[in-house]
Amino acid sequence: MRVLITGANGFLGRALTQRLLADGVLRGQAIDTLILLDKTLSGFADDPRLRLHPVSVTEPALLRRALADGVDVVFHLISIPGGAAEQDYAVGYQVNLLASLELLQQLRAMQHAPVFVYASSVAVYGGELPARMDERQPARPELSYGAHKLMVETALADLTRRGEVDGRALRLPGIVARPREPNGLRSAFMSDLMHAVAAGQAYRCPVSAQATAWWMSARCCVDNLLHAAELNDPGTQRVWQLPVLQLSINQVLDALLSTYGQERRELIEFCPDAGLEALFGRLPPLRTPHARALGFRHDGNALALVRNALLPAARVRRIRALTETAGAPQP
Amino acid sequence: MRVLITGANGFLGRALTQRLLADGVLRGQAIDTLILLDKTLSGFADDPRLRLHPVSVTEPALLRRALADGVDVVFHLISIPGGAAEQDYAVGYQVNLLASLELLQQLRAMQHAPVFVYASSVAVYGGELPARMDERQPARPELSYGAHKLMVETALADLTRRGEVDGRALRLPGIVARPREPNGLRSAFMSDLMHAVAAGQAYRCPVSAQATAWWMSARCCVDNLLHAAELNDPGTQRVWQLPVLQLSINQVLDALLSTYGQERRELIEFCPDAGLEALFGRLPPLRTPHARALGFRHDGNALALVRNALLPAARVRRIRALTETAGAPQP
Repeated sequence: MRVLITGANGFLGRALTQRLLADGVLRGQAIDTLILLDKTLSGFADDPRLRLHPVSVTEPALLRRALADGVDVVFHLISIPGGAAEQDYAVGYQVNLLASLELLQQLRAMQHAPVFVYASSVAVYGGELPARMDERQPARPELSYGAHKLMVETALADLTRRGEVDGRALRLPGIVARPREPNGLRSAFMSDLMHAVAAGQAYRCPVSAQATAWWMSARCCVDNLLHAAELNDPGTQRVWQLPVLQLSINQVLDALLSTYGQERRELIEFCPDAGLEALFGRLPPLRTPHARALGFRHDGNALALVRNALLPAARVRRIRALTETAGAPQP
Repeated sequence: MRVLITGANGFLGRALTQRLLADGVLRGQAIDTLILLDKTLSGFADDPRLRLHPVSVTEPALLRRALADGVDVVFHLISIPGGAAEQDYAVGYQVNLLASLELLQQLRAMQHAPVFVYASSVAVYGGELPARMDERQPARPELSYGAHKLMVETALADLTRRGEVDGRALRLPGIVARPREPNGLRSAFMSDLMHAVAAGQAYRCPVSAQATAWWMSARCCVDNLLHAAELNDPGTQRVWQLPVLQLSINQVLDALLSTYGQERRELIEFCPDAGLEALFGRLPPLRTPHARALGFRHDGNALALVRNALLPAARVRRIRALTETAGAPQP
């Protein structure tokens, strides 16, 4: 079993790499080779299964070299985030659109159609959402990032129909808690708030306490990416909206304070930015019965989101065990 | 006013070229230069306004040369038809998708955002249609041709939002009457039937007499392409489903026979092909109130469709004048 991760150096890519190395198995087969591709690759374990390709995904020849010995499962995570892609259109066009199309073209030439898990985004819906929505909501992107994600979804669905790639596209919500560094994501505040409370630092929140967003921890997201790869013959419709936790900033803050201490509430100041609030602060309830029936999941509740997002895996397992012993209701 | 037509040698391209040369004016300005681009260009009038570029649209450098002196309005008509693109995926991918994206990239670098009229297709909807539908029907393409049209629509809408191109995408139904030659179109029967009756030749129709399709004459289609180019500031939503005539083969045949003589009915034999009937013979009524409000039109009725599709322009004008004199109801 040969697996490729593009964007392996990123937030999700690193979490997925760790998980695959730890699991050692995918689709019932041992992972012999895990090919990591990203512009830079640093700090990965010295594991004989790893093949590092510290190259740009926008170079077709280098991409071809990474795929030279074949690949069974691809996790295509690399992308220029929404805010950055909007500012530097050309870079977003090259990475988010053209490189994805080129990768698909190279994969369709392979002897066996590889499983292709694509990290798409709720950005495909754009900003004008109904008061309640479900997973069949038509896409109407309002950022180049979302437009390019939608185009790659369309290309992937077409090649899947043709039997040339076995595509599975997941529309991801805001994933937390990303490292606190400039990352070009306009939704960075979702992670920054969590880190600030966890670290006991002051934070000016750029949306109101009532702002509602869609949340998922990286741990839960990796579960869903793996689940997408594991599914056998999941039908003809291959673009899935992941279940999300629709929570207000207040609900997340309450969960953070009950974990880290109520006195930290005074560290948070609200200075809402109207534009940001319109984009990320008015997200309606989102029903996903089809994705749930297929086995995709969100974190469960705000407390589980906080612990999945911020605590080390070992500690989360311990908390889960304790909660189960105490007979507390499960998410 | 500099105008570019890609696919100028094609059926619609030739009709549009003739019309633009005859009108001489677009968006209130005289057409100084009409740039024609197609792999081959033959039989065009010796007109000082014409600039012929007999090159492939898939060559970025040659495309750049055609655009070197700037362009104000683009009609992007070139495409590999659905059947041909499905059989030879690579050619469809290069022409229908990559060349369109490259053209848009070259245009967005221009000083003024050019008006860009894109010939998209009802193929974006795919085959599973409701019993009644309207122009808001979600796209779910089932052929690579439709997938690539949808992707270009998405790219065009995004660049229009960014103010870099002034895009207007029209979803075209089956256009008649195309020349009777192999053209890779699976809907070729719509034109072939019309030519056969007009020429008094026998014809085996590959769909049933009850098959319903969406029809438009080339003349009406050119009217709509020009109307799309003429519109000033037509709102933010720039992908329009053209109004169509939903007619059964029987209805079109009746109009043909009343034009060319009832005795020709016996020339037509029906040998329905289940696949073709499923793709092109079950098309439901299609409401387009938004496109109509913007001034887009279908041919009016089956008789007008037949005369617009088959008779020379001069003769159609004469018939129209006679009908109007006689006080007959207008479409």
